[in-house]
Amino acid sequence: MSQHFSSERPTALSNPHADRVKKVARLVGRSARSRSGHMIVEGPQAVRELLLHRPASVVDVYLTGAAITAHPEMLSLAQAATRWVHEVTDEVAAAMSGDAQGILAVARHEAIIEAEDAADDAPSPSTFVCVTQGRDPGNLGTIIRTADAMGASAVLLCAGTVDVRNPKVVRSSAGSVFHLPLIPMPSFEAAVDFLRSRGVRLLGTSGSVEAEDLSELIATSLRGAPTVLTGSHAWLMGNEAKGLSEEELAACDSLVTIPMTGHAESLNVASAASICLYASQLLRGR
Amino acid sequence: MSQHFSSERPTALSNPHADRVKKVARLVGRSARSRSGHMIVEGPQAVRELLLHRPASVVDVYLTGAAITAHPEMLSLAQAATRWVHEVTDEVAAAMSGDAQGILAVARHEAIIEAEDAADDAPSPSTFVCVTQGRDPGNLGTIIRTADAMGASAVLLCAGTVDVRNPKVVRSSAGSVFHLPLIPMPSFEAAVDFLRSRGVRLLGTSGSVEAEDLSELIATSLRGAPTVLTGSHAWLMGNEAKGLSEEELAACDSLVTIPMTGHAESLNVASAASICLYASQLLRGR
Repeated sequence: MSQHFSSERPTALSNPHADRVKKVARLVGRSARSRSGHMIVEGPQAVRELLLHRPASVVDVYLTGAAITAHPEMLSLAQAATRWVHEVTDEVAAAMSGDAQGILAVARHEAIIEAEDAADDAPSPSTFVCVTQGRDPGNLGTIIRTADAMGASAVLLCAGTVDVRNPKVVRSSAGSVFHLPLIPMPSFEAAVDFLRSRGVRLLGTSGSVEAEDLSELIATSLRGAPTVLTGSHAWLMGNEAKGLSEEELAACDSLVTIPMTGHAESLNVASAASICLYASQLLRGR
Repeated sequence: MSQHFSSERPTALSNPHADRVKKVARLVGRSARSRSGHMIVEGPQAVRELLLHRPASVVDVYLTGAAITAHPEMLSLAQAATRWVHEVTDEVAAAMSGDAQGILAVARHEAIIEAEDAADDAPSPSTFVCVTQGRDPGNLGTIIRTADAMGASAVLLCAGTVDVRNPKVVRSSAGSVFHLPLIPMPSFEAAVDFLRSRGVRLLGTSGSVEAEDLSELIATSLRGAPTVLTGSHAWLMGNEAKGLSEEELAACDSLVTIPMTGHAESLNVASAASICLYASQLLRGR
């Protein structure tokens, strides 16, 4: 198949001021995404994951000549997903996105799996992440990438969290946004109900004295005793500057402390998520 | 003391075009930092850690009226560190840095502890981090913050890694750059020698089949058997896009795999560092 496709060269676009180019560039903004039902995907890693995992939602793919040479598989992957693969000049690629290394795609919103029932195939015990008031796109993308790597079943995104189709989220997820369900929740309360109705316990990280020490939980679980980490659970990740609110902490079924032995007061939220999700994976099969 | 100082108001600076303002703003650039021997520290969290941990290296502190009101302790902390505390208008603060929330300091390079022998007080067993070819300031700052939180003894920074005094590194470290030794290494080979001469084993993360599984290492160590994680060791963290080179992998005493059960091909380097450093801390006391 790839041989058949790679023998045809796509038509080249060269006018960086064309309407089509402006339309793609505008997808960095939330309102243009809402109006069009489209999203922009930038860079080789994210575009490859889109093409491999969500080919039916691809609208257009734009590649520079240099990118086709550097990533020869990308052209055939793109042509297998859509007939709308366009070769573009470097100027056109730069006008579409400053951050794409010559490889871009436009996809329909359905590239992101949002259905609530997508989480119902989760194995038991399963791990979820619930993000509330997460404002930094780099942190959200990194959390989604780690959740994917650590085998989480889905990420719940409460209203107030940055749009998951923001191109910086997509990029920093390294394409993991196309791998697991990312379920929007109209409110934090809705997320709590979603988890509770599925028997998933909500865990919040906290430095308070009542919180259970993560390292003790791991040691206990590895000795074969059941803990909150050996059953289905969701890690609640809050705002990067303020952490979890009193109300959010009160809604948790258990609080867990990540022990810290240095001078730092706290961890970056994506670092905390990495440690928590690794612990979940470590214990999931045991 | 704070009462005495907080009764005097510092003199206000109001000209955003003044030479002094331009000189501070230029410290975002590496050449201006080298020439002056100074660095810029932005935002309440980083400035607070500078004032608390490295007061003798503070040159000037700049605070807006609004910042003094929002962070009343900052003025007295600043005045305890230096007589050069300046109230500035919002315009002046904005001209010095776009990212300081009205709180900035200029410090001498010695604010960062660089001496090789600073690592010789390390407890045994101890944990180090060695960063080679790390290009992203946000990732480096996050790695330093996590190393600090997880009780690492020092971070080695090999030539080719982003300057640790880059203001984005300082900010994303949340001030942890002022907490633990950050030792520059003229080359990767020098870092290997530094560690070897101190009996510290170098560990690299790798997906290769010879690598030991991190989760197995944790389970084994928690059962009381010695592993590479129960002795002194250093985690080698490489370039964010390319990972560790063949040469870097060959220099490691052991290779370790972080198991991944989802579709992601890899983790962000700062996420990987968080998981590795947490594992080190988990086992350090056991």
